Amino acid sequence: MGKASSDARKLFVKADELQAVSQALLQRHGLSPSDAAIVAGCLVEADLRGVETHGVVRLVHYLNRIRLKLINPKPDITITHKSLVAASVNGDDGFGFVVATRAMDEAITMAKMYGLGLASVYNSSHFGMAASYVLQAVREGYMSLVFTNASKAMPPWGGKDAILGTSPFAAGAPGGKLPPFVLDMAVSVAARGKVRLAAKRGEQVPEGFGLDKDGRTTTDPNKILDGGVVLPVGGPKGSAIAMMMDIFSGVFSGSAFAGDVTNHTEEFTKPQNVGHFIMAIKPDLFVSKQDYEARMDILTSRVKSSALADGFSEILVAGEPEAMLEAARRASGIELPKAELDAIRLEAEKFGVSFPSLSPAPFNA
Amino acid sequence: MGKASSDARKLFVKADELQAVSQALLQRHGLSPSDAAIVAGCLVEADLRGVETHGVVRLVHYLNRIRLKLINPKPDITITHKSLVAASVNGDDGFGFVVATRAMDEAITMAKMYGLGLASVYNSSHFGMAASYVLQAVREGYMSLVFTNASKAMPPWGGKDAILGTSPFAAGAPGGKLPPFVLDMAVSVAARGKVRLAAKRGEQVPEGFGLDKDGRTTTDPNKILDGGVVLPVGGPKGSAIAMMMDIFSGVFSGSAFAGDVTNHTEEFTKPQNVGHFIMAIKPDLFVSKQDYEARMDILTSRVKSSALADGFSEILVAGEPEAMLEAARRASGIELPKAELDAIRLEAEKFGVSFPSLSPAPFNA
Repeated sequence: MGKASSDARKLFVKADELQAVSQALLQRHGLSPSDAAIVAGCLVEADLRGVETHGVVRLVHYLNRIRLKLINPKPDITITHKSLVAASVNGDDGFGFVVATRAMDEAITMAKMYGLGLASVYNSSHFGMAASYVLQAVREGYMSLVFTNASKAMPPWGGKDAILGTSPFAAGAPGGKLPPFVLDMAVSVAARGKVRLAAKRGEQVPEGFGLDKDGRTTTDPNKILDGGVVLPVGGPKGSAIAMMMDIFSGVFSGSAFAGDVTNHTEEFTKPQNVGHFIMAIKPDLFVSKQDYEARMDILTSRVKSSALADGFSEILVAGEPEAMLEAARRASGIELPKAELDAIRLEAEKFGVSFPSLSPAPFNA
Repeated sequence: MGKASSDARKLFVKADELQAVSQALLQRHGLSPSDAAIVAGCLVEADLRGVETHGVVRLVHYLNRIRLKLINPKPDITITHKSLVAASVNGDDGFGFVVATRAMDEAITMAKMYGLGLASVYNSSHFGMAASYVLQAVREGYMSLVFTNASKAMPPWGGKDAILGTSPFAAGAPGGKLPPFVLDMAVSVAARGKVRLAAKRGEQVPEGFGLDKDGRTTTDPNKILDGGVVLPVGGPKGSAIAMMMDIFSGVFSGSAFAGDVTNHTEEFTKPQNVGHFIMAIKPDLFVSKQDYEARMDILTSRVKSSALADGFSEILVAGEPEAMLEAARRASGIELPKAELDAIRLEAEKFGVSFPSLSPAPFNA
């Protein structure tokens, strides 16, 4: 697993400064201050939570897509109510971050009134870390289901052609005194972004992540990306969940589907037309708020206090490792490869935006 | 994998005759004709679809639970609307089959009006094969999400105490001219019922299904059942989905949760108080019915026409293998272990119910 690249050197940057430079660059590319804050916030949140594949590593790439007119920096997002609890959201090719945030807002507004709210989204684009919208709902006190489709990257079980996405399955529920439940999982053995990041960083991936273009197992991320595929988790189970994501997010919404969502890192001819299924649910619909919170805390504490299996020192519920990492990184700064930070610095210089000071050591060292 | 029991001999029985004897026995135990038809129909449907763990193998066990007053044969199922799209369903300790069918009916009724309908169920019991309710929705032309919680059988990731259920994750969507999508998967590597059936039949299970009571891997189903645990699919992923099932079905509904749902095959002191989360969704909410059906068929046909991976002769979507088996078994009859059929015959004789004729060969041979 040796590092092949001399650019593997890493430096620390403060989260708020990383967010400021990202937001400023997005504004220079035509986003409103509030939309730029949403996109920059989601990217930095991903880095804080250890989901670096969906973090600022993609900022320059997104700026390129704006310049190529593949992402609309000033989308006219329209919301059409099909019923009291169901809204169709046309993302107008805006940033998925902005469109999905707006959709979750609408879902929560409906759930406040009727217990449930569904925003079905089309003409959206890559929305980054699905947990962003689950966390948005949690902060407002709501449970949620967040599904999306994606460009083709994974074969159905039994096949070798990539047709399905490795879209995340995400859901969440607020806690009481204990942390919330925040699930965000790729339905592949590992997220495709992890393979891409390993390739970019010159690292190998573990056996079982994917196949090369001839259907043979490989640990070389480049061979997986070069006409190969990542594999579904649990064989037919991951494959079926991926197809379900495409039905609920794509077939249902009117967006592209069945492999027709374009790959935002490889195709530069047209917008992606991603679909999302975003649902908010009021947790105290059937029991009181006090009871709901007490019950969540009982479940979480029982799960966490299970006797440990060999090799484990603590049981963490979904979202907890990420929240711990976020707290640590807010203090230490976020450690990122120098090459990635240099790419952002170049953009900052080009657009006259001030760039944060970096440190070889944690800021709280 | 040799068969340890001399009772492993199998015989064929016609589906409609198996349903008739099951229904008659349930009526003798106090169920109304319509409720008895629902329970018998779900059990035989599971056998037809190859989910024998949830089929008539459990009929005598269920009759025992009625006799022990742990299942209420004449439940007063009450439905309280918390909003236009959200109903709380008190199952009054009735059969899970009856309660969940009633809940899905209600969810569909709401979805007809408002696009979505959620029935949140408590005081229910084991509902058998989750696909039953997904198929119920598909027959009415609706998409669905069907979650349930269950008695503790699986540790959280990192733990060795069983706290979570191996509850199925189930969802579905009608097709157009092609078959519907019907997903029903245990979040364990394999359903606990499969381990129980292997034990009953004197067979071994594959490596990776579960651990013995000391946390060691084993292929002996009895060692898994005797204080051991089954393992979550995909490690932390299956573990997190199981916890999500308990939040959405249990914490949310007011039912038992966090390991407090009693085990219907081992505990005979009180009703189970299972919770379900049953949602129906109108497929043509955002695109026309014609477009929805055409889009589903495009997705299904693209998935099925992927180039094949080594070792596969056909790609089947979720629910398709089960539907093919059902068609075959409706013609051939259902092949079941003689010992299981004998147990039902004994009950039939005791209650003066006529028992079907059995055949050593398929009825269409």
